[in-house]
Amino acid sequence: MPENTIDTTIPVLGESKIPSPILKSGRYSNLQCFVTDKQRVLIDVDMESINHLLDRGREIPAFELAGAREKIYFDPSKLRCAMVTCGGLCPGLNDIIRAIVLELSFGYGVRHIYGVRYGLQGLIPKFGHDLMELTPAAVADIHKSGGSVLGSSRGSQSIEEIVDSLERLNLGILFMIGGGGTLMAANRIADAVDRRGLKISIIGIPKTIDNDIHLISRSFGFDTAVDVATMSIRGAHNEAVGYPNGIGLIKLMGRHSGFIAATAALARQDVNFVLIPEVDFDLEGPDGFLAALKERLALRKHAVVVVAEGAGQKFFDSADSSRDASGNIRLQDIGLFLKKAITTYFRDADIPVSLKYIDPSYIIRSLPANANDNVFCSFLGRDAVHAAMTGRTRFIIGYWNDQFVHVPMEASAGKCRRIDPFGKLWLNVLEATGQGPLIRFQ
Amino acid sequence: MPENTIDTTIPVLGESKIPSPILKSGRYSNLQCFVTDKQRVLIDVDMESINHLLDRGREIPAFELAGAREKIYFDPSKLRCAMVTCGGLCPGLNDIIRAIVLELSFGYGVRHIYGVRYGLQGLIPKFGHDLMELTPAAVADIHKSGGSVLGSSRGSQSIEEIVDSLERLNLGILFMIGGGGTLMAANRIADAVDRRGLKISIIGIPKTIDNDIHLISRSFGFDTAVDVATMSIRGAHNEAVGYPNGIGLIKLMGRHSGFIAATAALARQDVNFVLIPEVDFDLEGPDGFLAALKERLALRKHAVVVVAEGAGQKFFDSADSSRDASGNIRLQDIGLFLKKAITTYFRDADIPVSLKYIDPSYIIRSLPANANDNVFCSFLGRDAVHAAMTGRTRFIIGYWNDQFVHVPMEASAGKCRRIDPFGKLWLNVLEATGQGPLIRFQ
Amino acid sequence: MPENTIDTTIPVLGESKIPSPILKSGRYSNLQCFVTDKQRVLIDVDMESINHLLDRGREIPAFELAGAREKIYFDPSKLRCAMVTCGGLCPGLNDIIRAIVLELSFGYGVRHIYGVRYGLQGLIPKFGHDLMELTPAAVADIHKSGGSVLGSSRGSQSIEEIVDSLERLNLGILFMIGGGGTLMAANRIADAVDRRGLKISIIGIPKTIDNDIHLISRSFGFDTAVDVATMSIRGAHNEAVGYPNGIGLIKLMGRHSGFIAATAALARQDVNFVLIPEVDFDLEGPDGFLAALKERLALRKHAVVVVAEGAGQKFFDSADSSRDASGNIRLQDIGLFLKKAITTYFRDADIPVSLKYIDPSYIIRSLPANANDNVFCSFLGRDAVHAAMTGRTRFIIGYWNDQFVHVPMEASAGKCRRIDPFGKLWLNVLEATGQGPLIRFQ
Amino acid sequence: MPENTIDTTIPVLGESKIPSPILKSGRYSNLQCFVTDKQRVLIDVDMESINHLLDRGREIPAFELAGAREKIYFDPSKLRCAMVTCGGLCPGLNDIIRAIVLELSFGYGVRHIYGVRYGLQGLIPKFGHDLMELTPAAVADIHKSGGSVLGSSRGSQSIEEIVDSLERLNLGILFMIGGGGTLMAANRIADAVDRRGLKISIIGIPKTIDNDIHLISRSFGFDTAVDVATMSIRGAHNEAVGYPNGIGLIKLMGRHSGFIAATAALARQDVNFVLIPEVDFDLEGPDGFLAALKERLALRKHAVVVVAEGAGQKFFDSADSSRDASGNIRLQDIGLFLKKAITTYFRDADIPVSLKYIDPSYIIRSLPANANDNVFCSFLGRDAVHAAMTGRTRFIIGYWNDQFVHVPMEASAGKCRRIDPFGKLWLNVLEATGQGPLIRFQ
Repeated sequence: MPENTIDTTIPVLGESKIPSPILKSGRYSNLQCFVTDKQRVLIDVDMESINHLLDRGREIPAFELAGAREKIYFDPSKLRCAMVTCGGLCPGLNDIIRAIVLELSFGYGVRHIYGVRYGLQGLIPKFGHDLMELTPAAVADIHKSGGSVLGSSRGSQSIEEIVDSLERLNLGILFMIGGGGTLMAANRIADAVDRRGLKISIIGIPKTIDNDIHLISRSFGFDTAVDVATMSIRGAHNEAVGYPNGIGLIKLMGRHSGFIAATAALARQDVNFVLIPEVDFDLEGPDGFLAALKERLALRKHAVVVVAEGAGQKFFDSADSSRDASGNIRLQDIGLFLKKAITTYFRDADIPVSLKYIDPSYIIRSLPANANDNVFCSFLGRDAVHAAMTGRTRFIIGYWNDQFVHVPMEASAGKCRRIDPFGKLWLNVLEATGQGPLIRFQ
Repeated sequence: MPENTIDTTIPVLGESKIPSPILKSGRYSNLQCFVTDKQRVLIDVDMESINHLLDRGREIPAFELAGAREKIYFDPSKLRCAMVTCGGLCPGLNDIIRAIVLELSFGYGVRHIYGVRYGLQGLIPKFGHDLMELTPAAVADIHKSGGSVLGSSRGSQSIEEIVDSLERLNLGILFMIGGGGTLMAANRIADAVDRRGLKISIIGIPKTIDNDIHLISRSFGFDTAVDVATMSIRGAHNEAVGYPNGIGLIKLMGRHSGFIAATAALARQDVNFVLIPEVDFDLEGPDGFLAALKERLALRKHAVVVVAEGAGQKFFDSADSSRDASGNIRLQDIGLFLKKAITTYFRDADIPVSLKYIDPSYIIRSLPANANDNVFCSFLGRDAVHAAMTGRTRFIIGYWNDQFVHVPMEASAGKCRRIDPFGKLWLNVLEATGQGPLIRFQ
Repeated sequence: MPENTIDTTIPVLGESKIPSPILKSGRYSNLQCFVTDKQRVLIDVDMESINHLLDRGREIPAFELAGAREKIYFDPSKLRCAMVTCGGLCPGLNDIIRAIVLELSFGYGVRHIYGVRYGLQGLIPKFGHDLMELTPAAVADIHKSGGSVLGSSRGSQSIEEIVDSLERLNLGILFMIGGGGTLMAANRIADAVDRRGLKISIIGIPKTIDNDIHLISRSFGFDTAVDVATMSIRGAHNEAVGYPNGIGLIKLMGRHSGFIAATAALARQDVNFVLIPEVDFDLEGPDGFLAALKERLALRKHAVVVVAEGAGQKFFDSADSSRDASGNIRLQDIGLFLKKAITTYFRDADIPVSLKYIDPSYIIRSLPANANDNVFCSFLGRDAVHAAMTGRTRFIIGYWNDQFVHVPMEASAGKCRRIDPFGKLWLNVLEATGQGPLIRFQ
Repeated sequence: MPENTIDTTIPVLGESKIPSPILKSGRYSNLQCFVTDKQRVLIDVDMESINHLLDRGREIPAFELAGAREKIYFDPSKLRCAMVTCGGLCPGLNDIIRAIVLELSFGYGVRHIYGVRYGLQGLIPKFGHDLMELTPAAVADIHKSGGSVLGSSRGSQSIEEIVDSLERLNLGILFMIGGGGTLMAANRIADAVDRRGLKISIIGIPKTIDNDIHLISRSFGFDTAVDVATMSIRGAHNEAVGYPNGIGLIKLMGRHSGFIAATAALARQDVNFVLIPEVDFDLEGPDGFLAALKERLALRKHAVVVVAEGAGQKFFDSADSSRDASGNIRLQDIGLFLKKAITTYFRDADIPVSLKYIDPSYIIRSLPANANDNVFCSFLGRDAVHAAMTGRTRFIIGYWNDQFVHVPMEASAGKCRRIDPFGKLWLNVLEATGQGPLIRFQ
């Protein structure tokens, strides 16, 4: 239970002394809408865990509640802010960019807001990407399109050159929207900012379509991804039932965790096998996947298989593994591997099958967010601004126990949220698919 | 903080002694997936509230965690179950029916499962509605369609006649899916069951597309409703910007709470005024809505207005109010009222406007659930079964702090979750719409 | 067979002498892609009609085929063009605006292109609406949104003032996108242009979501409208089957013709009664609609009714009829009328029913075009430009026998395409609904 | 102009003497809705072609108009019918099955209707597939799902064994829904039926998602396919603009023709290169595709490429070509080939690019039909029944000049409709993409 010992303190650049200008023009009493620093959200809501801590006289760990504060650190009239989107596309990027710009502009009156083009490349002079000036008018409709209006890129860049740029641009806040690699870079940038004695807030907004960030119960874009993934499952199901021994095989996103695969399977309820990184399985042998698939076909004449991209990596020679520009281990393609393995297995067994393979990844990543993610991203972006204006730094905006919270970058970095093979989600997948006894557990 | 004194104990019909048959056929160790009765979810996650309670030596209130238990009360081989859907349609009804049937059948081996037709009418002999036999094959694809395969109806029926039917049918469990009126009927049915000394579990699955059940942070169908409501807002926006002084007026669901209106406005971000039951407003006068609308038109030449159906009821003579068959106060139609008020106001002011009125309610209610609600309903239905099999009764399946929990019927009954006019959701609506200073607060 | 005597000649402002610049920069031989004036599309494709004409030595009537011509009349370097959208919104308006701008710009090199704001109001100085300058960059993404970026308005304006504006702006071409009233205005504008001896082409692009323009087999936006109308039918069906004696009543667009109602009913196949302007029906009496509805409920317990807005106008006192700003007769609301009539009828008969009324008109009108209409509008806009550049005037771009053609304004004006009550479309509706014998025919 | 010499006569099994029972129960006068055999639809609507024929005293070729006839050949009370779906899935299959069953049942009173399972396999005893009995109740909702409720298969089967089955089942009509291979099999089955002196109508309903059947201007499913293909283009566009030198590469269906690729590109208007089988192109060299792509990236930093699966087959060694079970030449995968060629080219040129590859084929094929295809399929199925009941055989139901017609199997067999590289469709694609001069023409 490592959460018990988490340090949930968020560093600040200095004391917040300036009264917040939020909503002050109206008759709406802004005092009543501010969050205080004492408002904290328990990390663990399980009664037993809490009692266990209380019995030992230990403090109950809790995150700061996100939201507007009564006093702020930065002077809006002088502040210059920038934001950057890094790594793969994810539904909701434009919603967040828009929310940050609108909150900075209308909530706080900040007038100098910039978008960094093409990820961290945009802060490295040699790439020659100009900054975009971001105004409320410029971002008014961007949430209706997918992708990122700033563009993105993969790959690390020189931390010192980045901080040179931040200094040269005289920035007070940098919002970094990206995945694990980006958040680690954010940490290193914050280190360099500290070393130089600069007053620049570095805020992370965690992006992972796989929904697998430690201490973050929901990441933006995931809901949209599941929504659209079900369309592929519908297709695979129709193809499977359409032919004698029809097999629909869908590869979904999920490098380290199978949340998209498992959740989409629950949403559509037409899936017979879900293969995820968290649950080991064999191909061959009486308990292997192929024998189970054969049994299923004998029984029902069709099968739908969903595989997360990170599943079954044990089948590949680790010597082959390389890393992509973002530093992620380049996964071998389990989808194509399974396609071949299934085809070969049934050909050798002289059983004609009709296998259709679907890989919808890029269709999903590039979509506009659905309504649920629209709303979620709107909160994420605005809360990032509220926190940043108080001079907080080195944190990410998280979501925990139905609340938006501040999570220290260190607490979440480098760790991955994964499906518990004995938990409720996976139990329901086993029940919905009926694949239960066919898969061995780690 | 009334939650502090909630009694969260769930009554049971008797001791659970029968080992659960769930997943027992596989190599999957079912022991590890069971939830124990000690697992409880804190109701309040705010640190200050918890400390306040601890300082006073008070118990910290918590709900039972939902999920499969190791021992059950009912003998599946003899058990007869029924389910009924009551009141207005809501996306997800078929998902829940399906999940209950599949879990009873495949999870526990129950073989006698019935669907009550057309709400509580189906338990009153004089209506002549036959029961439907519900098998896994019969419900396999029902989640792909909207509505309820059982049908529904409004209106109360004789409690004694209902219990006569339950007795005659020799039922052990009755799942009641419905809104506030249904849950109150469930309570009265449970009272009558007790009086007669019967062993029948009465389980409620709370249905409100408005998402306004007390102590339930999310109700099924709401996410789908918001999703589709945004389509109407998109239309209203295009109509509004399409004409000189164009006004798009949309009435959305929300009898006592404005969650759909507020959330849809945040999702689409094209709305200029949101009017909800929780926030008072005037029509006339310098601070009234009409003056604000006029100002907005002068400034931007178009406006989009979203009104929840329960907003502005003060404008109607309460003498007019009657009740519908479900016992709900029959609201006066605020949408048509506003349409007329706006038209008259601008005609009198000699300002030509082009107003388009949209009421998408029945399109929304009758839709199939989206992926997010599919998954949510699948959990709701299965958890209702897990709890029911242990002989628990007089509770509803709720969702709190990201967990499915058991909530005593009494704790939730007759109370309504509403938008806090000083909370984060409404603050974000004020910022997204810019309507801020124009509306007075209660 | 009035088409036999149609004069299909299109007037021109002068001789086309300038070689078309289209595609000339490439190695693509533009000679091969030009249409000649001799290419004509037969109006009537029925063998018997053709033989009938030939026997009498009469000419076979045919429309000019639309498309790029080898020689053009206007000098692109000096030409100034404008376009205007009038009347109600319709999916595809932005697609057409975009296609006109792109073809003028990239196809012909025209550099002065203007959008008239808010319909014909934009050509009347007293309204104070500025022109929009339309460039390829400005219109690049507009087809992804519904509505009209130019805005629209209803109502007639002074023809002379309009032509004053055309003259003052030194326009060569005016593209008018609108319905029957707009095309009649176009004719009068062209008359005034002639009287003043000006060289201004007036081109109509017929807009009617109802798909009921004489001699035009398909109008843009209709396909999108049907697509979305089916969503309402799905909802009405689920509401109807969801309650004892459930009735879903949907009002769809269709002032003079029932194409949307009939086609949507065929698309969804869940409709039991379709009521359209072309087919008379009674409410009362043994052959009336209400008796038929009662019979249907007795038999199947639910019914879905689709009514076109122009159906059943005989039930209203014609003395009540007024005209809207566009000069259309203001129809009485048949949807609300039927809702009341049905409710009263069954209340009097002491038969409880559950009626749900859906009016999706403004949701439909304001949508972006679907893929099919995107493509159709792209052709419409480009063909309008090709024809306009040759100095053709007083025509509309039509679609006939699967081809885009030039139709003289006079040939189509003031007449309405309607459903043949003995034709294939209505026959299929009768079969799909089973309403057959219950409706009397004119 | 080979259509001039087409023999458009449809063979019949015998004289139609039985009065049609269609609609006879109502007051609707069925006489007025019948089509006569004299009603014929001109094949060519071009005035010049017609005059050319008339000048030479030649007959003007025309198809029989489809529709219900006054007299029929088969006695509905004794008739036994079957239908089969063959080859790849296509949106609309279930709509057609449903329409055939409903028209046979309700229109004509036929009571013995069977579905052949899994394509022609279902008529070969050794596969052991039972027939499905098809009733109106069984097919009521099937059009709401994609795929085929009958299932399908690829591959030819013994004609004699098939006819043995037809004989044994005592069938009068066999509806065959399939592509080119299926229609050729239909012809051979009809030959064998003739040889044996049997009275069995063999009717083809042409299926090609590629929309490339000779003399058929529209095939079912194509409109749905284009609709959904645009989603992939939207995704590819967002991915392309999201990265420096981003390239979105989409492979769409189209073995011999590029209609889906070209039409989808026109619908979405975000595509920069469309590569289709009808238009030759080189990869290398100054005029090659790769140089053009490089130029585009230098200019705009991103590019979207759509390639039809049958494009660029010249790049593959023809020795590699094999045939699939349906007898189609197994195409080499141009999508993966281009992906590799582009990656290699830019790596060699030391230009970093970010290429995303999307292949949505199976998602598209397995979808339910959209509203437009729903309606189209409903007509197709009903007209197939009307014609079949008259004893017509060896024909397909076609669509030509906006009318449903009877096309003799021989007239259409083995020929392919293709995009004219100098016609309007391709011209518009060139304009919409701007790829014009970069592609050489055959």
